[in-house]
Amino acid sequence: MCRWLAYSGSPILLEELLYKPDHSLIDQSLHARLGVETTNGDGFGVGWYGANIDTPAVFRSVEPAWNERNLRELAGHVESPLFLAHIRASTGTAVQQTNCHPFRYGRWLWVHNGLVHDFSRLKRDLALAVDESLYTSIEGSTDSEMLFYLALTLGLEDDPPGAVERMVGLVEEAGHHHGIEHPLQMTIATTDGNSVWAFRYSSEGRPRSLYYSTDMRTVREMYPERPRLQEVSDETRIIVSEPIVELAGAWNEVPESSYGLVREGEDELHPFRPR
Amino acid sequence: MCRWLAYSGSPILLEELLYKPDHSLIDQSLHARLGVETTNGDGFGVGWYGANIDTPAVFRSVEPAWNERNLRELAGHVESPLFLAHIRASTGTAVQQTNCHPFRYGRWLWVHNGLVHDFSRLKRDLALAVDESLYTSIEGSTDSEMLFYLALTLGLEDDPPGAVERMVGLVEEAGHHHGIEHPLQMTIATTDGNSVWAFRYSSEGRPRSLYYSTDMRTVREMYPERPRLQEVSDETRIIVSEPIVELAGAWNEVPESSYGLVREGEDELHPFRPR
Amino acid sequence: MCRWLAYSGSPILLEELLYKPDHSLIDQSLHARLGVETTNGDGFGVGWYGANIDTPAVFRSVEPAWNERNLRELAGHVESPLFLAHIRASTGTAVQQTNCHPFRYGRWLWVHNGLVHDFSRLKRDLALAVDESLYTSIEGSTDSEMLFYLALTLGLEDDPPGAVERMVGLVEEAGHHHGIEHPLQMTIATTDGNSVWAFRYSSEGRPRSLYYSTDMRTVREMYPERPRLQEVSDETRIIVSEPIVELAGAWNEVPESSYGLVREGEDELHPFRPR
Amino acid sequence: MCRWLAYSGSPILLEELLYKPDHSLIDQSLHARLGVETTNGDGFGVGWYGANIDTPAVFRSVEPAWNERNLRELAGHVESPLFLAHIRASTGTAVQQTNCHPFRYGRWLWVHNGLVHDFSRLKRDLALAVDESLYTSIEGSTDSEMLFYLALTLGLEDDPPGAVERMVGLVEEAGHHHGIEHPLQMTIATTDGNSVWAFRYSSEGRPRSLYYSTDMRTVREMYPERPRLQEVSDETRIIVSEPIVELAGAWNEVPESSYGLVREGEDELHPFRPR
Repeated sequence: MCRWLAYSGSPILLEELLYKPDHSLIDQSLHARLGVETTNGDGFGVGWYGANIDTPAVFRSVEPAWNERNLRELAGHVESPLFLAHIRASTGTAVQQTNCHPFRYGRWLWVHNGLVHDFSRLKRDLALAVDESLYTSIEGSTDSEMLFYLALTLGLEDDPPGAVERMVGLVEEAGHHHGIEHPLQMTIATTDGNSVWAFRYSSEGRPRSLYYSTDMRTVREMYPERPRLQEVSDETRIIVSEPIVELAGAWNEVPESSYGLVREGEDELHPFRPR
Repeated sequence: MCRWLAYSGSPILLEELLYKPDHSLIDQSLHARLGVETTNGDGFGVGWYGANIDTPAVFRSVEPAWNERNLRELAGHVESPLFLAHIRASTGTAVQQTNCHPFRYGRWLWVHNGLVHDFSRLKRDLALAVDESLYTSIEGSTDSEMLFYLALTLGLEDDPPGAVERMVGLVEEAGHHHGIEHPLQMTIATTDGNSVWAFRYSSEGRPRSLYYSTDMRTVREMYPERPRLQEVSDETRIIVSEPIVELAGAWNEVPESSYGLVREGEDELHPFRPR
Repeated sequence: MCRWLAYSGSPILLEELLYKPDHSLIDQSLHARLGVETTNGDGFGVGWYGANIDTPAVFRSVEPAWNERNLRELAGHVESPLFLAHIRASTGTAVQQTNCHPFRYGRWLWVHNGLVHDFSRLKRDLALAVDESLYTSIEGSTDSEMLFYLALTLGLEDDPPGAVERMVGLVEEAGHHHGIEHPLQMTIATTDGNSVWAFRYSSEGRPRSLYYSTDMRTVREMYPERPRLQEVSDETRIIVSEPIVELAGAWNEVPESSYGLVREGEDELHPFRPR
Repeated sequence: MCRWLAYSGSPILLEELLYKPDHSLIDQSLHARLGVETTNGDGFGVGWYGANIDTPAVFRSVEPAWNERNLRELAGHVESPLFLAHIRASTGTAVQQTNCHPFRYGRWLWVHNGLVHDFSRLKRDLALAVDESLYTSIEGSTDSEMLFYLALTLGLEDDPPGAVERMVGLVEEAGHHHGIEHPLQMTIATTDGNSVWAFRYSSEGRPRSLYYSTDMRTVREMYPERPRLQEVSDETRIIVSEPIVELAGAWNEVPESSYGLVREGEDELHPFRPR
């Protein structure tokens, strides 16, 4: 079980969300509250967009996030209008930098919480379904990265929701072929630097938790003492595996089997149907 | 809050105690039950004696113990009649190899659970009290290593209980001088390769937990399915911060303000009085 | 360009070969003399057999070998009659533990110096050629590990030389299919805990260097001051990428396109022909 | 022997100097040309100033710089008008993050190339000379960090050249007291975010190499294909242990026993005299 956070809106220092809230993502690396495991100590990563959205930066490390001095330095000095952060609890694959999220391909970033059940049995079939030109870019050994490359194969760059629906369909078919009843558990965020898509789905109908901030007025009220947050635009949104602060009305749960789209202008929430 | 384990007796594979018990030390790195913090993910170490007790080996790493493949390999292939293992939860000092326990000097090993309160204020005074010839061997920045070098300065190699009592006296005096009411919290194990001394003490009278195995008959009964444990001698002893298996009668608590001595022949338990 | 060493013979402390010779393997991690790159700082590993040859131990790390305190500790305390050690200079794939040699499957170990040219273009075809039941055991992303799993697929456990010849044939065919003129550069050592096979081959006919110790009498004369080496049996053999000591008559070069077999009894040297 | 680089001038991406030149600092981590050791693989660090010069960021790691993906990401996305970078070759102390340069205290950064001869014998005396209020901020075990805290003790924040001269005087006196003929080798850069002071000195009169860029017109001509460098101001300066590009006229050697001051307005070069 992992934890992730997506931010889109007015540029802020990463630490405003990664460290300062009471139950920040970094705090969740030691003390997660929702889910089975309370420790997410098997590495972390953060990907952010700067002036040039074509080349997002990715900082990943196998240290537990609560220990990592470089992450703290970075978070205190890097400002970004759009970033994804992830803390990892391995479901079996090696703890190594290439298995840390976010994964990146071109201008796209990808984070995942959940797992492919019996991934070791499905891995070869899934790998074969990845486009030949993409295959060689796979660096790690996780189910999460494989899901990313399958989605890329199935059109992520042109039609993100459709590609993820097809990806899930493909994984479920492969799983059923191998006799796995409920092949997939996932919350996923992916972004091209402009929009963020967030998905919540599980083959068995009990997906991992996922929340989005209702509106920034509420967030501002949550942190009256934090001047930087007072200045963020109304369109700013935060999407999280687990609320980073306990405040009535601040968070909405993303419904099961649905996905949200966050971007400039009106946000959207739609049903998610594997194809 | 850290966790440690000392073993003395018939040679066994390290994994028999580090991994195989239900609530093994490695399991405690993720899920400790006693004490404030449940995660001990800030590094670990194991020191063991082989054929030549003059040169104990020390393996230390900053990875969380639950992740460390090399530790698992080592534990599955190294056999020893006397070893100390430690999992660390930093109380503020850097997570680095030189801050991991056990500390070693010559043939002596040292592990510590607890802390010197306000160590940063006391550090210089304590450092000055270390013998000049020993000072340069200090490699890390922890209170635990400082306690070891103070004990060495005060005669650890000749009179371990006396040296530790004098060390505690010195630390408490320095602490009181700086207005610190309860300067020290500690359980400590130290060994020269023949005997193990285990101390339990706290300035305020509420020391960290410490247990020792009652006798090996009980341990054998605990693990009937483990042939290696059936063969260990009656003199074999295990001392632990936290029981590695829940079994009535298997563990005795070391009383507050006391220390035990484990060696060939009769074991001893004595009161501990700072001097 | 990497460097490796294989030892088979009387049990010795690993440090006798890894650290003590003038131009030891660890020294070669900073100062290799043969080949293009002088630094092999992208990780290392050592695999050894103890009492139970069915479960060799593997210790691997991404630190430069010259820095690694744990390796030095281990090498000073672990004795073995058969071990492989490797220092890595990455040819492009990530520096991570799962990319360090030796690779292990069951009781087999494998080290490789060299590369598959244009591996990224061949990777998918080679991965498809790995047996389905073996595929899921691949943990890293190197060409070296892929060669191991191809050899396992093609019968390594039953006929090591034949399997490696078939593996090379397969890689060369896949390479030529992709228009790669000289697909493979390799020296390889593999062992089942009883025998060591060492291969030297290159598609273009200019393979990496490889040497074996002529006989232990010479080695003993090389190190008169090292009592442990005086005691090793006449059958003891060392195979190395680069001589660990400069002494006339001590080392024989393994001829191009050939392989050697080291085991109890007479050693063998045969031509190597890709199939 | 280490290598360092200081940059002061128009804001540029760190990678413009750390990665892009032919003989960049990162390239020097594998292939230094001046000095005894060619490999600087024992960690690295970079410290930079952003909008707020009171809180410089510091990114340090024990990985060899040539391997470090996070450094490459950072260098490609962080822009700064003033930064120090350092690659380390340990002269004996542990390879750990707290021993990597730059060291930071408040808004000050410090990098050092060279060593205190027989530091282990001098260490205690030097530690005692550090101001009590500063002592507790020492985190690592290097001579380089000790020199920084001695300079801080002796007035670095008010009079940098005077403080460094007094620090050298103190170290030399302590060294001579212990019978060390030539106690100190050093090139040092230190900065408060506005100015950079660079020192070159050795007790025996043969200090490590140190160069500064003559003027930016030359640098621009060196890199006609790099548009970002064409835009930097005439006041921009680079100070380096070893030239990062071989071009006649681009670099001036800092004379022995002297120091330079780089800041907005006229630069200065003065003799350095230990006090």
